[in-house]
Amino acid sequence: MRVFQIQDDWGFDHLSLATRPEPKPGPGQVLLRMKAASLNYRDLFVLDRGYGGFTGTLPLVPVSDGVGEVIETGAGVTRVAVGDRVCPMFFQNWIGGEPDLERLTASLGGPIDGTMAELMCVPEQGLAKVPAHLDDAQAATLPCAALTAWSALAVCGTTRPGDRVLVQGSGGVALFALSFAKLMGAHVTVISSSDEKIERLRAMGADATINYRAHPQWSKPAREITGGRGFDHIVELGGEKTLPQSLRCIRPGGVVSMIGVLSGSSMSTALGLVITRHVRLQGITVGHRDGFEAMVRAIEQHAIEPVVDRVFEFDALKEALSYLKSGAHFGKVCIRHGA
Amino acid sequence: MRVFQIQDDWGFDHLSLATRPEPKPGPGQVLLRMKAASLNYRDLFVLDRGYGGFTGTLPLVPVSDGVGEVIETGAGVTRVAVGDRVCPMFFQNWIGGEPDLERLTASLGGPIDGTMAELMCVPEQGLAKVPAHLDDAQAATLPCAALTAWSALAVCGTTRPGDRVLVQGSGGVALFALSFAKLMGAHVTVISSSDEKIERLRAMGADATINYRAHPQWSKPAREITGGRGFDHIVELGGEKTLPQSLRCIRPGGVVSMIGVLSGSSMSTALGLVITRHVRLQGITVGHRDGFEAMVRAIEQHAIEPVVDRVFEFDALKEALSYLKSGAHFGKVCIRHGA
Amino acid sequence: MRVFQIQDDWGFDHLSLATRPEPKPGPGQVLLRMKAASLNYRDLFVLDRGYGGFTGTLPLVPVSDGVGEVIETGAGVTRVAVGDRVCPMFFQNWIGGEPDLERLTASLGGPIDGTMAELMCVPEQGLAKVPAHLDDAQAATLPCAALTAWSALAVCGTTRPGDRVLVQGSGGVALFALSFAKLMGAHVTVISSSDEKIERLRAMGADATINYRAHPQWSKPAREITGGRGFDHIVELGGEKTLPQSLRCIRPGGVVSMIGVLSGSSMSTALGLVITRHVRLQGITVGHRDGFEAMVRAIEQHAIEPVVDRVFEFDALKEALSYLKSGAHFGKVCIRHGA
Amino acid sequence: MRVFQIQDDWGFDHLSLATRPEPKPGPGQVLLRMKAASLNYRDLFVLDRGYGGFTGTLPLVPVSDGVGEVIETGAGVTRVAVGDRVCPMFFQNWIGGEPDLERLTASLGGPIDGTMAELMCVPEQGLAKVPAHLDDAQAATLPCAALTAWSALAVCGTTRPGDRVLVQGSGGVALFALSFAKLMGAHVTVISSSDEKIERLRAMGADATINYRAHPQWSKPAREITGGRGFDHIVELGGEKTLPQSLRCIRPGGVVSMIGVLSGSSMSTALGLVITRHVRLQGITVGHRDGFEAMVRAIEQHAIEPVVDRVFEFDALKEALSYLKSGAHFGKVCIRHGA
Repeated sequence: MRVFQIQDDWGFDHLSLATRPEPKPGPGQVLLRMKAASLNYRDLFVLDRGYGGFTGTLPLVPVSDGVGEVIETGAGVTRVAVGDRVCPMFFQNWIGGEPDLERLTASLGGPIDGTMAELMCVPEQGLAKVPAHLDDAQAATLPCAALTAWSALAVCGTTRPGDRVLVQGSGGVALFALSFAKLMGAHVTVISSSDEKIERLRAMGADATINYRAHPQWSKPAREITGGRGFDHIVELGGEKTLPQSLRCIRPGGVVSMIGVLSGSSMSTALGLVITRHVRLQGITVGHRDGFEAMVRAIEQHAIEPVVDRVFEFDALKEALSYLKSGAHFGKVCIRHGA
Repeated sequence: MRVFQIQDDWGFDHLSLATRPEPKPGPGQVLLRMKAASLNYRDLFVLDRGYGGFTGTLPLVPVSDGVGEVIETGAGVTRVAVGDRVCPMFFQNWIGGEPDLERLTASLGGPIDGTMAELMCVPEQGLAKVPAHLDDAQAATLPCAALTAWSALAVCGTTRPGDRVLVQGSGGVALFALSFAKLMGAHVTVISSSDEKIERLRAMGADATINYRAHPQWSKPAREITGGRGFDHIVELGGEKTLPQSLRCIRPGGVVSMIGVLSGSSMSTALGLVITRHVRLQGITVGHRDGFEAMVRAIEQHAIEPVVDRVFEFDALKEALSYLKSGAHFGKVCIRHGA
Repeated sequence: MRVFQIQDDWGFDHLSLATRPEPKPGPGQVLLRMKAASLNYRDLFVLDRGYGGFTGTLPLVPVSDGVGEVIETGAGVTRVAVGDRVCPMFFQNWIGGEPDLERLTASLGGPIDGTMAELMCVPEQGLAKVPAHLDDAQAATLPCAALTAWSALAVCGTTRPGDRVLVQGSGGVALFALSFAKLMGAHVTVISSSDEKIERLRAMGADATINYRAHPQWSKPAREITGGRGFDHIVELGGEKTLPQSLRCIRPGGVVSMIGVLSGSSMSTALGLVITRHVRLQGITVGHRDGFEAMVRAIEQHAIEPVVDRVFEFDALKEALSYLKSGAHFGKVCIRHGA
Repeated sequence: MRVFQIQDDWGFDHLSLATRPEPKPGPGQVLLRMKAASLNYRDLFVLDRGYGGFTGTLPLVPVSDGVGEVIETGAGVTRVAVGDRVCPMFFQNWIGGEPDLERLTASLGGPIDGTMAELMCVPEQGLAKVPAHLDDAQAATLPCAALTAWSALAVCGTTRPGDRVLVQGSGGVALFALSFAKLMGAHVTVISSSDEKIERLRAMGADATINYRAHPQWSKPAREITGGRGFDHIVELGGEKTLPQSLRCIRPGGVVSMIGVLSGSSMSTALGLVITRHVRLQGITVGHRDGFEAMVRAIEQHAIEPVVDRVFEFDALKEALSYLKSGAHFGKVCIRHGA
């Protein structure tokens, strides 16, 4: 079968097409014909061996998110059947409950081979069915991008109608956070760098928006949007440059979900803003299968459609990664695995 | 000022109009000109001294729910100002946190004088502002009926989009539970005794409905609505006759909010249904001011309008109570306090 | 290998010694030489096909609790190694998170073959290591009896120093609940039927005790022990006859963990006691592997020793079950699997 | 009556003895004859107007913690009686539930006059009774130092037996955290700057200790103490210099309670340590009256004795503050209010 793999050494230049033998499902395993993949910033970091300091080995099939069709099941498989369309979970061992080292290390797209392969062999415990109303590219976006947003809003935090939620940007996690927070009845403010994107965010249901280019000290207008009370929940995707602003408009006792590092990876701010106002900073790293399955029920009920910016052919993975890196996208950048 | 009071002895026949001296607000207190009241089943029980075994003394001004306008503030009052429209809280001492005996005993409409008075004098800690878009009768429904539904779904339980929620009937708490569960993105099933009411419940957003007269063993079709998985949350308003059915369609690990006793006040069922399926039965008795204020933010954001079935004049309290008792209403029965 | 099995039909008389072929571990599986088993009331119910209405098939190896030594591992096993002493989990599929039907149905001792076999073959995900300081009989008591108590006090509830906890009786779950609640700093009251048992409960750390034979209305003296405030948490093991008393001495907002049905399996009480006092009745059915592993850390740190009343030889299973049924025991009744 | 007050301008040099008229309790208020006070670092910050940016006005009676005897009650007071020994709560308006601006701003010792007065007049909602077995100096330590530790371990976090907890230093909050975590059955590691202090920490029950002067990279030996798994909970009292170490030995999904800034007030660390390991940083600022009352029940049951390093006379406040600043203390520095 054809795969993309990082081989010989790390780095964008060492990403190549290759051929591997077709896998066979052992007991409890499931063979998937992959239909689509979806890119995350993590995929860029992995290329440079830079994310979370994991020690993967080469060659490695990259990319964490994808969807496939079950074409064969090993002995004893009961959770899925041939013909089911399923996503392999990013954390293959995290079924539910609290995270631990064992659960957080077995992740797809490094150190475990990812979704840029024609076929994948996955333990039945490590996958979950996807909503029928989604096309393949849309379904491929769920395991990391959607689940991260869901974990922030519905698992680690609890969002209630009337809550004020702030979301940063218009990438994959941001758009899912906007959708999910609206489903939960929250009032959602989104900050973005362009008025054009802001228009699209409004169309998706954003109750309030701020252009952070125009307002680098955006925490002030943001706080005004809440009537001075502050946000109940901020979905922090910017990191270094946004966190100090976030801490200036979170309410006392509020929750900041720490997810992204788009503007830099250092945390540098006054401790007093966290301590004296009883703020909670909650690191979020994707989530568990239980969360995924709850999220799928929500997506099905409300016929939520993930926003796919652009779909590249399988062979165009490097172009797709470059496009992701450019930041020009609104929503997800996906890959079609072909006939 | 004019009041209704239970005097000489308990019982419907001892409910009469009377005159009392006008109260004056002391330090920290607020004087309200009452605009409307709203009836609950509890008001019927109180007349017969039957609810929760409280030991109130007569004469007693009945009725727990109401809304008034601030017309004078005592020394040191900061939370409200003259002209504000506010509800006195049902539990005057329960600001937030867990319930305790002190918090659950100081309740309006018995043992503390209730809302069927032209004027009420209330500590500023014991009231909260109401949404501007509600008329007086609508605003009067919030302290018990709405807050009970909110506490069940948003405080004691956590309802997420995609959750399956079942609500019983079309009384005040039921309709608020339907509205709030929809705001939270849940899929809501309502059971009712009449097809006419069912039509109205559908119009309010119920995703599925069952006529429990036509299907006395309604847990079977109800379970089918959930695809066999069972409900995540059941808002139990019927009590004796509904609980055994509820336990047959709640999912393992689900939450049954125990609120009403409309069909009888005994709990009689097999313990195994609770134990072996890890079910949680959560008694709900109204809620705290923190919950009320969060609920008001939700009602404001979504412009929720409480369903008022009928508004009686102040002097017609006894007719209003009889009408409530008949069960013919859909939504709340209210009282207008007059000019 | 030798096993006990229920064969031909259900019932105590159909429990016999038999021989089965030795199992071999497939990929991801572990072969255990069983060292000891431990009995629970459930084992008696299963014999009569009476518990939770499960539909097991015969022949069935009974008994849920046991401990064994790893003597062989299948391909890909990483969680345990040959020589490790481990317990198979009661719920083989419940790793962590919330219960669901899939997790609550795959239970040992029915419908899955239980621990009364010389060898067991178990998926590595379905077992956990045990503390080194426990002998085999003690270690065998952990999967159901100990984990049920742990789930009640440390997973579904949260017990804090200064909390008032009431425990019923001196069976396996009761003694673990006493031990764990003391570890958590709670003040623990135990009710028992005999002064002799009460003396032993005192020696184990019970802060207060009541002989419920001498005080059938034990909720009154119990409430006095709490200074009138009521218990924060009651570990309900009696069921039908104890629950009405429990509801009379639980504090407003308190938690009643519903576990046992020793005095009858119907729930018959006034709903008002639950509703008007915001009480939570929480069904507890054993628990998940995450809870087991947390519990083991606690048992190891504090060198807790499970109370074993008596150890029977493997062949004496029927005498052991009869002894359990008599109720004469204090702590656990165990089985030694022999040389 | 005699008071200490900051007058004319902020700063240590503007702290002076003064005389004020005796207060009289209005309705709902209580008059206390103060018996003792207890110092916190906050008192030093307040002198320099530096803490949390509050805008207090001068003159201001400093010091947050203290205990007094009720000598008179205003109309309608029911929670306490003359002769009761009580602590005024640090946050006068935070009874229970979540923090908000109103609750976090009405704090004693700035902007509200503090405990360095012979008499204090306090609303009955703003105080709570203290355990009888404590002397006045010990009782005075509870409102800030003890409650902060309790909030971290028992309110915002949940500490279970077997949990690994790390505490920093030997100041007031640290010693309470050690005591409370031991009550909860946790395994407690304490880091300290001196072997002499370490000896005393061991005597108080610390299971493991590290001299952080000897081991500036103390996260390594700390992690080994947990068998490589990491700490479930770290009570962060050092701030700037300790946080990066704390993030290197917290377990995935663990909780870091952010409390102190003894080594500096900037947060400067890699975001990845928080995000990729699902860590929670929870700001803790004292706590609510509900927490105080729960803590008092724990202290009473276990006869916990707060560690008082030294008691100064009322007139020696400035010496006491200088001593606190020196960092030489082990436990609390207190003030005796005198005859």
